[in-house]
Amino acid sequence: MSALPPGAVIGMLGSGQLGRMTALAAAPLGLEVHVFAPSAGPATQVTSRFTQAAYDDEEALARFADAVDVVTYEFENVPARTAEVLAARVPVRPGPHALATCQHRAREKGFLRDLGVPTAPWWPVATVDELAAALEALGGQGVLKTAELGYDGKGQVRVATGDDPQAVWTRLVGAVPRRDLVLEGFVHFEREASVVVARGLDGAVAPYDLVENEHRDHILHRTTAPADVSAAVASEAAALATRIIVALDYVGVLGVELFLAGDALFVNELAPRPHNSGHWTQDGAVTCQFEQHARAVAGLPLGSPARRGRTVMTNLLGDDVDAVPALLAEPGAHLHLYGKAEARPGRKMGHVNRVTPG
Amino acid sequence: MSALPPGAVIGMLGSGQLGRMTALAAAPLGLEVHVFAPSAGPATQVTSRFTQAAYDDEEALARFADAVDVVTYEFENVPARTAEVLAARVPVRPGPHALATCQHRAREKGFLRDLGVPTAPWWPVATVDELAAALEALGGQGVLKTAELGYDGKGQVRVATGDDPQAVWTRLVGAVPRRDLVLEGFVHFEREASVVVARGLDGAVAPYDLVENEHRDHILHRTTAPADVSAAVASEAAALATRIIVALDYVGVLGVELFLAGDALFVNELAPRPHNSGHWTQDGAVTCQFEQHARAVAGLPLGSPARRGRTVMTNLLGDDVDAVPALLAEPGAHLHLYGKAEARPGRKMGHVNRVTPG
Repeated sequence: MSALPPGAVIGMLGSGQLGRMTALAAAPLGLEVHVFAPSAGPATQVTSRFTQAAYDDEEALARFADAVDVVTYEFENVPARTAEVLAARVPVRPGPHALATCQHRAREKGFLRDLGVPTAPWWPVATVDELAAALEALGGQGVLKTAELGYDGKGQVRVATGDDPQAVWTRLVGAVPRRDLVLEGFVHFEREASVVVARGLDGAVAPYDLVENEHRDHILHRTTAPADVSAAVASEAAALATRIIVALDYVGVLGVELFLAGDALFVNELAPRPHNSGHWTQDGAVTCQFEQHARAVAGLPLGSPARRGRTVMTNLLGDDVDAVPALLAEPGAHLHLYGKAEARPGRKMGHVNRVTPG
Repeated sequence: MSALPPGAVIGMLGSGQLGRMTALAAAPLGLEVHVFAPSAGPATQVTSRFTQAAYDDEEALARFADAVDVVTYEFENVPARTAEVLAARVPVRPGPHALATCQHRAREKGFLRDLGVPTAPWWPVATVDELAAALEALGGQGVLKTAELGYDGKGQVRVATGDDPQAVWTRLVGAVPRRDLVLEGFVHFEREASVVVARGLDGAVAPYDLVENEHRDHILHRTTAPADVSAAVASEAAALATRIIVALDYVGVLGVELFLAGDALFVNELAPRPHNSGHWTQDGAVTCQFEQHARAVAGLPLGSPARRGRTVMTNLLGDDVDAVPALLAEPGAHLHLYGKAEARPGRKMGHVNRVTPG
């Protein structure tokens, strides 16, 4: 339960932009970040410590564990064995149990159901026969998703009762006979929202304000902080996020994606890491989500999640980066680029935060 | 006159905390920093690009110049020959002329005199005989300083008319017969202040608000932003800083140290780099001085220097870092540590910014 001192090293699995921004926010706390990843990326540009190795290279993992004081990760698809090898030698935060829950849709939804948290209707599916039964139970439109390794709309397919189960199965997962899937029904929601919430090693919980998210092609386009909701809905969202993070015995920053149907909140999914919808906090909150994550995993006290004004965060995807010169010239536009050389379509290249008083 | 694109590399001479914080602020602009220094330091922890070599290693300098798009520096004592070798291959910003002016007290004071900027009375001194004449002209108390390589109160000695010139000379510079020195008289000031000002490649000038500085043992202890002065004094300070940075044809961030005697301003000295008294901007201004410096030297448009509230910046020297746990637990205290392992007395280990609305 002890706090890491200045000079301590956070091990980071993954070299993407979330690791990069965590490293940038950890430095002023006197914490260094050591990246472990199969290839260089945005995060390795901002630290002198990088182990380039595969996630199943157990020798490299052991050396990495010995070189750092705590391990965290910037993506939820960390292989279970990787987490296990590391956890045997060094604290892993968020812990392997939270990771295992959040990286598997069926386990995550079972956890939320057991906690009494509202979600869209769902059915676990592992075979074509189970899919047939679930499509029947669905009674309308839905989405079939792989339980693991999906993100930004990948690993999922729209379905409806009456579709041929075998054809749907083959389309999503190919010829394999068994695979963990989840069939999700729809909630008729008007808006998408999220709460980014942090929990410290001491058990303190700090939710950021509920924010509203707009997606384009399944990828976050824009976040508005705070969401335009009643005080009651805002506190309900904070309470829900708090209940979830406590039940997971979680240490670090957690993204809780929500649907808003009138005043009712439904949890869509959990992300066991800093979250794209929390990027507004870099310029719009007293403590940004990346500093908060670094504080939590290092066992330091959490900072204040209070807002500094109202913020709109807009993602820069693919050739949206062509707008960079204009954004640099726009007073009060805070640019955050990820150091990626190639602007492929849909690729997250950076984001911009615009803060106004209030 | 063209702006560097995302992915461009800023070469940084020096591996100290100013380079570190510039690198941390450059990253979100998509700019990488390549450090050149004789030894690793705070800056090399936050970049993957580091050339370890002496400042007179011309081969290493040439390779460095070829690996970066622009060169800047985080300390004023860059050897003239180093700047020359680099400037022959790559833009150096601020330029060699501004550097040469600011790194030599007599040249700097001559520049200010020619510009009509008020300073304390001063006499250039190069020999014991000149020192004797200057001590006579001083008519009271003063400080004898080396023209080059002094900082934080090093390289200076208190003197008074009537002191033995030979004894004073020997005490400050030893047995050498010739050395560029400056004898400074005192201004009877009540407060110390400064303006940190930026100038872009396009000639745009952006002064931050005048701030008040308190020193302890010649080292900055605390900065209060803004200084408690009349609007007239605040604009006079901004005008003075603007006049100086334009006359130097300067690109980058410049620290202008001032004395305040009633409503009268006197320039004490210039620092051709981000300045300790500008650290408050990291949490208290729309654009921090390090991002501003990166923007300027990369040829990007300057950001807004507007204040976000009122900020008090306090340096953490030596074992002041023992307060880090308490500072981490203090809501709204923004900690900035430099990653230095050893807390020697007087060593700048970090600083803390406290922002309040207003």
